[in-house]
Amino acid sequence: MLDISFTEAQSDAKVTALLQTLCETWHSTIPVSQFMNIKPVLFNGDSLQVTAPLEPNVNLHHTMFAGSIYTLMTLTGWGMVWLQQQLSQAHGDIVLADAKVRYLKPVTKQPYAKVIWPYTDLNPLNRGRRVKITLEVALYCDDIMCATFTGQFVSLPPKNISID
Amino acid sequence: MLDISFTEAQSDAKVTALLQTLCETWHSTIPVSQFMNIKPVLFNGDSLQVTAPLEPNVNLHHTMFAGSIYTLMTLTGWGMVWLQQQLSQAHGDIVLADAKVRYLKPVTKQPYAKVIWPYTDLNPLNRGRRVKITLEVALYCDDIMCATFTGQFVSLPPKNISID
Repeated sequence: MLDISFTEAQSDAKVTALLQTLCETWHSTIPVSQFMNIKPVLFNGDSLQVTAPLEPNVNLHHTMFAGSIYTLMTLTGWGMVWLQQQLSQAHGDIVLADAKVRYLKPVTKQPYAKVIWPYTDLNPLNRGRRVKITLEVALYCDDIMCATFTGQFVSLPPKNISID
Repeated sequence: MLDISFTEAQSDAKVTALLQTLCETWHSTIPVSQFMNIKPVLFNGDSLQVTAPLEPNVNLHHTMFAGSIYTLMTLTGWGMVWLQQQLSQAHGDIVLADAKVRYLKPVTKQPYAKVIWPYTDLNPLNRGRRVKITLEVALYCDDIMCATFTGQFVSLPPKNISID
């Protein structure tokens, strides 16, 4: 667990280390994320951008596969919750409860998925209570929005302190 | 394109060949589906079952990754439309327009996804018109329903005969 707070004085090096840890967590525990070559690329405390190349993620139309688009957006949302937990030193297992996705345009080049953090108090986790967070993720290709995702994430406190 | 009709006289060999072609189509055009080792296993004209092993599809909780669950259910729906097009000799490019997914229970063993064909007339495709199909897919593990998926699929007629 990295012990940092995100402030204006936050160094680029610490952000890079945090994103590197996130990427390694994905690739070492979720084989599909490694195959897809999903990588976080930008985080400023409120906004996270995550990308994946087209090549391992194509479909038979040579555009990005609907399943890959969904997975990229799911991990973007998951990654944002994980990053916020690191910043607030809150501990919780993050799961996805449900999601809606809309495919607006074919993705013909490497896209990036973007999510903004809606302020959500994560402190209940450290008091043994679960936290629910609804995240909106958008996927862009050449700055054109190609897909949208709304997901309900739940972070569950470690079992030894869980009270609900 | 296989030229068959699904009747009571349909031989197991022809169904096997049809599912083999579906599997090869997925694995040769969608690299993620091959990595996930997604395979159609049962088709009786109205019902399709598709599976994938847990190992390449785990998450950091050692259960099935939410993105893999979604992809398995998406391809189950796509596969059903593809199979019905083969049976009715209709030609169309199948895409997913939107979807909703709910995760009900962790998937701890190899699951299977199941979809039932709601009668939908595919003949408009051969008159150059698109067809929309809403499919409900359920994912089971040890006969317990662990996830549900509702997807709106659209099949687009070949461009040279498309009129909408």
